[in-house]
Amino acid sequence: MSSNTRFAEAAAALGYSFDGELKIGGNYVPLLRDGNIVYVSGQVPRVGSTVVVTGRVGEQVTLAQAQLAAKVCAMRALALLKGELGSLEKVRQVLRVTVYTQSAANFTQQSEVADGASELLHMVLGGAGKHTRTSVGVYQLPKNASVELDLVASVNV
Amino acid sequence: MSSNTRFAEAAAALGYSFDGELKIGGNYVPLLRDGNIVYVSGQVPRVGSTVVVTGRVGEQVTLAQAQLAAKVCAMRALALLKGELGSLEKVRQVLRVTVYTQSAANFTQQSEVADGASELLHMVLGGAGKHTRTSVGVYQLPKNASVELDLVASVNV
Amino acid sequence: MSSNTRFAEAAAALGYSFDGELKIGGNYVPLLRDGNIVYVSGQVPRVGSTVVVTGRVGEQVTLAQAQLAAKVCAMRALALLKGELGSLEKVRQVLRVTVYTQSAANFTQQSEVADGASELLHMVLGGAGKHTRTSVGVYQLPKNASVELDLVASVNV
Repeated sequence: MSSNTRFAEAAAALGYSFDGELKIGGNYVPLLRDGNIVYVSGQVPRVGSTVVVTGRVGEQVTLAQAQLAAKVCAMRALALLKGELGSLEKVRQVLRVTVYTQSAANFTQQSEVADGASELLHMVLGGAGKHTRTSVGVYQLPKNASVELDLVASVNV
Repeated sequence: MSSNTRFAEAAAALGYSFDGELKIGGNYVPLLRDGNIVYVSGQVPRVGSTVVVTGRVGEQVTLAQAQLAAKVCAMRALALLKGELGSLEKVRQVLRVTVYTQSAANFTQQSEVADGASELLHMVLGGAGKHTRTSVGVYQLPKNASVELDLVASVNV
Repeated sequence: MSSNTRFAEAAAALGYSFDGELKIGGNYVPLLRDGNIVYVSGQVPRVGSTVVVTGRVGEQVTLAQAQLAAKVCAMRALALLKGELGSLEKVRQVLRVTVYTQSAANFTQQSEVADGASELLHMVLGGAGKHTRTSVGVYQLPKNASVELDLVASVNV
């Protein structure tokens, strides 16, 4: 089964559509390729025009909800890669993922939140989805998102 | 009009000088080039020896002031690139910009703050100034700066 | 004296062992090499199974303790590089270091915390340890760590 099929299955399992997600315009872009390295802008768990998980993790938001948010962020990043490359089969390796969690003062499970994204990347991309990772707990995020994720990947061009 | 001229115009419009900004010494450096990739250290809105916008955005600092801070950070990064490369015309593409905003608990316009930097980069560099971006809201920044920005760019060497 | 010897001396000076630190498993990895660029995952000041400096810097944790934490994080990153490359002599240049400090609301010495890591990298690696750096103050970190550090380096392969 190809990574494209697994991507579609993951979208179905989450119950969200990740079609038509490419944000156009503004003075920055969702994705840039330089040679065989691709940079993806910070993704919040937005589906269509709605950020589906908002609020502080450890207060209004549970760990499970935050893990879901991390999965949605990762799916958005994959949707951008798929749009750019035509196929997720062209992803050679996800190199770096940074996961920012809007955290309560005493919430220390940022790694567990990020596991949601890591599991999804591995599930869809297989070995190409293994990555280095940094997980931090921040004070706020755009649009009150609970989680934000960015990544760098190498691709076959 | 060259990007160097637009840089000078942007400095004049901001009313600040970005000459002599290259920080020397210490065990880290403001900029490093590896092949045709340049990394720029995190820049706070410092002009000379003064951080010109300090405090928490959404409390002591307005969105407009924070956007100004983001512009000053971006100008510092451009000044470093200009110093390294001789000319901003040698910037091929800004690849990644991360903008950290010292945020009030309920301030969620980190993207709007970062727009200040993105607009400036695009204004000075044109298409080469388009970039991927991550905007997060942090709890504190060095010297109580309201905004910090770092970037990675590809350059012609 | 080689960087490997200086690494051993730094470990002895800190009083910690950095052997057997390579974390295996999970859906992310501690280190990835892509060509001659190596990415190292975010490191907290863990020695064996214990995070040795926890809590908010500027409240429960002093600047000096946080600088120690930053050194331990840097040593962990070096241990990972050494494990991957066989010898730290193969590190060509540390390119980017990001240091996240779990900060009190009014603690603004994030750069001074990061100096702990920068000094250690320079002490062990010499000129190859000079790097660009971003220092930010975050609200929480995994396992209540006081400091987290990640890095990107170029290596000779």
